[in-house]
Amino acid sequence: MNSKKKFAVVLSGCGVYDGSEIHEATLSMYAISKNGGEYQIFAPNIDQYHVINHLTGEEMAEKRNVLVEAARIARGNIKDLQEFRAADYDAILFPGGFGVAKNLCTFAFKGADCEVNEDVERVLKAMHSARKPIGALCIAPALIAKILGAVEVTIGNDAATAEAITKMGATHVNTGHGETVFDKENKIVTTPCYMLDATIAQIGDGAENVVKTIMAL
Amino acid sequence: MNSKKKFAVVLSGCGVYDGSEIHEATLSMYAISKNGGEYQIFAPNIDQYHVINHLTGEEMAEKRNVLVEAARIARGNIKDLQEFRAADYDAILFPGGFGVAKNLCTFAFKGADCEVNEDVERVLKAMHSARKPIGALCIAPALIAKILGAVEVTIGNDAATAEAITKMGATHVNTGHGETVFDKENKIVTTPCYMLDATIAQIGDGAENVVKTIMAL
Repeated sequence: MNSKKKFAVVLSGCGVYDGSEIHEATLSMYAISKNGGEYQIFAPNIDQYHVINHLTGEEMAEKRNVLVEAARIARGNIKDLQEFRAADYDAILFPGGFGVAKNLCTFAFKGADCEVNEDVERVLKAMHSARKPIGALCIAPALIAKILGAVEVTIGNDAATAEAITKMGATHVNTGHGETVFDKENKIVTTPCYMLDATIAQIGDGAENVVKTIMAL
Repeated sequence: MNSKKKFAVVLSGCGVYDGSEIHEATLSMYAISKNGGEYQIFAPNIDQYHVINHLTGEEMAEKRNVLVEAARIARGNIKDLQEFRAADYDAILFPGGFGVAKNLCTFAFKGADCEVNEDVERVLKAMHSARKPIGALCIAPALIAKILGAVEVTIGNDAATAEAITKMGATHVNTGHGETVFDKENKIVTTPCYMLDATIAQIGDGAENVVKTIMAL
């Protein structure tokens, strides 16, 4: 019998400006592995909203697919989010990056009025209904707030983002580097990561604190 | 005065099959930051050898640039390898991935008879001449062997790769997960990482052991 806690990790591409933030994704997987858990990576099989040249910050005249690019972080070991079944996992974790706010939902463009990808919505609601823990880093707590409403989360201390989260019916709590907010009733653990001006060591702290809180449940 | 050890980290793209291995790159930067060092990321401004779809393993009809894609791992904070000056850094580190053997040199296609990118060669020779430490993960030790010849390195225990390294004039030492080979005379530290069938936690161990050995010099 395998008693390891099994996480689903949901990615949104590969690169902070148009996909998953790579350090947050990698250090989440690292924290799960180091603390005795295991994980399966997922991403939706959809086009990215756009492609950003990460050297110049400018948009590129290219099309890339979220699942195909996220497979770079996953070393090919990734599944289409459509295949996700809540019964197979003990917890779900969303690293950050603009891909969360551009590909998984439209928060980057529409704020509190954003739409959410239907598979992402289904998956989050299924885990919440099953009373299984949900972790979210960086901007991903905004996605959780949009779907679940009256929950308590943190994205650090950015006033405009915190206000949008409040507008979606959630409670925002300010936090610093590596700190987490744990909504016990809803089993949601969040941490700011690169929503603050952080070092990569601080990203590791945040990811590990989220994972450890979930592992202890 | 800043007394932090400053590492140059040289990337070869973004993704194990056509660029830098993302976990090795990220966990190297994490180990440097966590152990009190700092880093500047570099990559050559050249086209990738090719683009691999990491979901299917098949080649894609696209062109991508090594520096532009490596900027995804660097969050935009990256320099052209042409700008590298040995005087500015205390150590240099090469994470692995097929990009090392396809973009930085042609080891993936020509083995011991490979050619090396001229900036990569210049940079490695400059650091070696200055008697500054060189770290290399995964397949990157093959690149070191090609340039520096009579050094002692490890890529784990793959017989064919070890044989090619020996053919290039270097000595290969078999190692397991997280173990390092430290060539004291040449100040070269190597570890196998994903040249073995490793977990991401073991990649973290290997990267940290290389970084700690260099920090102690």
